[in-house]
Amino acid sequence: MEQEVNPKVEELKELGKFGLINFLGEKFSHYNSSTLSGLGENAAVIAHGNTDSVVSSKLFIENIHFDMTYVPLKHLGYKTITVAVADIVAMNALPKQVLVNIAISNRFSLEAVNELTDGMQLCCDRYGIDLAGLDMSSSQTGLIITVTAVGEVEEKSLVQRVGAKENELICVSGDLGAAYTGLILLEREKKVFEVNPNEQPNLEEYSYLLERQLKPEPRVDIIQKLKEAGITPTSMTNVNDGLASALIHLCKASKVGSVIFENKLPIDLLTFRTLKDLNIVSTTIALNGGEDYELLFTIAQKDYEDLKKVDNVSVIGYIKEEAAGNQLITNDDRQIELRAQGFGEVRD
Amino acid sequence: MEQEVNPKVEELKELGKFGLINFLGEKFSHYNSSTLSGLGENAAVIAHGNTDSVVSSKLFIENIHFDMTYVPLKHLGYKTITVAVADIVAMNALPKQVLVNIAISNRFSLEAVNELTDGMQLCCDRYGIDLAGLDMSSSQTGLIITVTAVGEVEEKSLVQRVGAKENELICVSGDLGAAYTGLILLEREKKVFEVNPNEQPNLEEYSYLLERQLKPEPRVDIIQKLKEAGITPTSMTNVNDGLASALIHLCKASKVGSVIFENKLPIDLLTFRTLKDLNIVSTTIALNGGEDYELLFTIAQKDYEDLKKVDNVSVIGYIKEEAAGNQLITNDDRQIELRAQGFGEVRD
Repeated sequence: MEQEVNPKVEELKELGKFGLINFLGEKFSHYNSSTLSGLGENAAVIAHGNTDSVVSSKLFIENIHFDMTYVPLKHLGYKTITVAVADIVAMNALPKQVLVNIAISNRFSLEAVNELTDGMQLCCDRYGIDLAGLDMSSSQTGLIITVTAVGEVEEKSLVQRVGAKENELICVSGDLGAAYTGLILLEREKKVFEVNPNEQPNLEEYSYLLERQLKPEPRVDIIQKLKEAGITPTSMTNVNDGLASALIHLCKASKVGSVIFENKLPIDLLTFRTLKDLNIVSTTIALNGGEDYELLFTIAQKDYEDLKKVDNVSVIGYIKEEAAGNQLITNDDRQIELRAQGFGEVRD
Repeated sequence: MEQEVNPKVEELKELGKFGLINFLGEKFSHYNSSTLSGLGENAAVIAHGNTDSVVSSKLFIENIHFDMTYVPLKHLGYKTITVAVADIVAMNALPKQVLVNIAISNRFSLEAVNELTDGMQLCCDRYGIDLAGLDMSSSQTGLIITVTAVGEVEEKSLVQRVGAKENELICVSGDLGAAYTGLILLEREKKVFEVNPNEQPNLEEYSYLLERQLKPEPRVDIIQKLKEAGITPTSMTNVNDGLASALIHLCKASKVGSVIFENKLPIDLLTFRTLKDLNIVSTTIALNGGEDYELLFTIAQKDYEDLKKVDNVSVIGYIKEEAAGNQLITNDDRQIELRAQGFGEVRD
């Protein structure tokens, strides 16, 4: 009987993160015509005439979302801005403002808060973002950070998860799996350090992987280049929970299916080699690794030629009818149904 | 020497909450002309032609901002929306959207999350606010909630802390000190319960005080009534940290001084009697109690007649030149310099 003490917790697990969000969200009514997009999108969209505001709010909790034993505070500050801004960029909007809340415990010094906000400032300066709100409070347990990002997009340029249509091309920016590979390395070094604190890690050769994990960039450059090339994606989302999760989510919202090809997945050579040394299949990490903060989007076939002007984007497959599901064609020509195995669970 | 282990922590204490926010905020540059107000205001103001968006983000941490031993989850949900919306209302804006993040620990059941969001929904329904974003994550320690509120105001109607001028009237909505008195009662009952868990508290006679603490309302009604009466306040802020703190903050932003009268402070009779029974001076609580979520604002003298059409507002004093400081004239005609003693410290 003991496992039945709280059957409700089991219900929560069964629902999963997105199931829970949908379940809870359903009871709320909508009153304002300015509220354009619902809970299924990367960010809230609020109409103002021809321009829309796009708003995203992210919560970062010590030991859940970051581990201060190996994350430098400056990098952490930078990354919190990136993560919030990545949701704005995923709507094809340019980030303009952030509001930041920081809760710190007693062990935090002024120097530490300074480091953290230096990292935030660096990211804001790089992308021309204004700090429009800052609040501090105390925490009994650890560091907690909230970043709310606000962006702007012309209404006709707004891109959402909804919008992909059959035969359109599936594209992804940058490369996949590097951030998660960086995390594996950091976790490994942490364990080595716990056993032998005198051992100095030599991670220099992995610096690209560590940078992808510790100091990712929001792909503002990609949406700017797409605009210059005259391309408006038909649908778009942020790859923060692994490509598989992002693609399934986008296809579900757009009511379509998809096929992607293993040999088209953009995996950096260092990611591939490092994972091989660790006996991990790089395709698994590219599909499910998480924290890439790359853009997954679809374009009309007619835009294929123009896409060549945009560096750093790979075409990895195409959109099919909904009934086809979401399929991966492997290097040995097998067809595998994609499953979301990212960090998308409430209790990870 | 031991107390000098971390001198930086001492620096942090010396700066205080607002000092720290100013210190950290100074290093950020502004890039966007749409960012209208700085860190000193209740909420961020973002321009869109003739309409401004007003954005506020609030972080609520278990055992820092609320105590789940006596706060019902439904009330907590309601209150988190109120607190975020109160900052929007303080800019004379109408709340339109909220984005919510909830982090829960293992002990949380679906029923509990449901209760919490039921309370949020109740407040959203009451004030016609749309839930435009909902995210869930896990927490190792306790419940953490972020509410980001977005409001709308015509640019000409925007009211900020900056704007009060000499000889204008200082007004406050509702009554003061009740919420803090409610907190004193709840803390007392908690201690009684810890000693004798069989003792059933009888708090019925204090229901107004408990409601003010557990389920406060954002004063959307006041800004609507002021609009109907044709009054635009010259400056305004939210009384969340005690009247003294709010007034000092407003006067500092407006570069003015003030005088208020003890016998004009709106204190509910039940608050007065309860505090008297507890041997606490009610003026102290009205000035420094916190969590009133009332509006403190200034109006031109010419608007005084029109103000009579607005229920539930008291004129408590007037604005003086900056050099006058902020003075309280007591019932026995003494003059006392106001000091902020609210919850405004980082380490409360």
